[in-house]
Amino acid sequence: MDSDGVLAANAAFYRAFAEADLSAMDKLVARDHAVAVIHPGWPVVSGRADVMKTWRTIFAEGPQNVCPVDPEIFAYGDIALVIVYEKTAGIFLAATNVFVREAGDWRLVHHQAGPIPAPAPDAPLM
Amino acid sequence: MDSDGVLAANAAFYRAFAEADLSAMDKLVARDHAVAVIHPGWPVVSGRADVMKTWRTIFAEGPQNVCPVDPEIFAYGDIALVIVYEKTAGIFLAATNVFVREAGDWRLVHHQAGPIPAPAPDAPLM
Repeated sequence: MDSDGVLAANAAFYRAFAEADLSAMDKLVARDHAVAVIHPGWPVVSGRADVMKTWRTIFAEGPQNVCPVDPEIFAYGDIALVIVYEKTAGIFLAATNVFVREAGDWRLVHHQAGPIPAPAPDAPLM
Repeated sequence: MDSDGVLAANAAFYRAFAEADLSAMDKLVARDHAVAVIHPGWPVVSGRADVMKTWRTIFAEGPQNVCPVDPEIFAYGDIALVIVYEKTAGIFLAATNVFVREAGDWRLVHHQAGPIPAPAPDAPLM
């Protein structure tokens, strides 16, 4: 399993997110596989064009202060899940990012994030 | 792609959920692949034993009124995502269920559910 490649793709995802970099996100989102996204509080969005539209909408608000914490890889051949906490402005979320190997790169096919309670100060999360 | 098999596994998941049937859930959760779960408002739980413990905790409260709506399959070979709305006691959630083919069956490796706003009355969701 190419754990480094998957973690690099996950890091690229959060970098694009933090920098509101639509072009970087466009490079990361898969082109040859079905894609979807579930942003917190949004309905399900599927199809590449509509998924990219959600990022355009979110990025129009400017850079996003989303910090990934404790990514964990769940590997299944050419598909990998990265399950990760997201810390943003005192709010905590948990996210599932699904990557697929496409043209030698790990590309994002799905992202779901949802709120979780803030962890206790001594919790392993932080 | 074995869409019928994936949808049947997804339906079995919600049946086990609705009936608080721990034995049915135990049959459905993968044994040979890494598993995790993100219940709404819970931290990430990974590892089969701990994942099953979450279901035991939830099912201890009795049958769960969770109704799946509009499941959509995203297929990647022997891995399939089912993205689906969940309706429960007037609350709406969106969920990602990840299935892997294991010993000829589709088994659950990951489930994340998070709240979404109630859809408008004419929305396709309902």
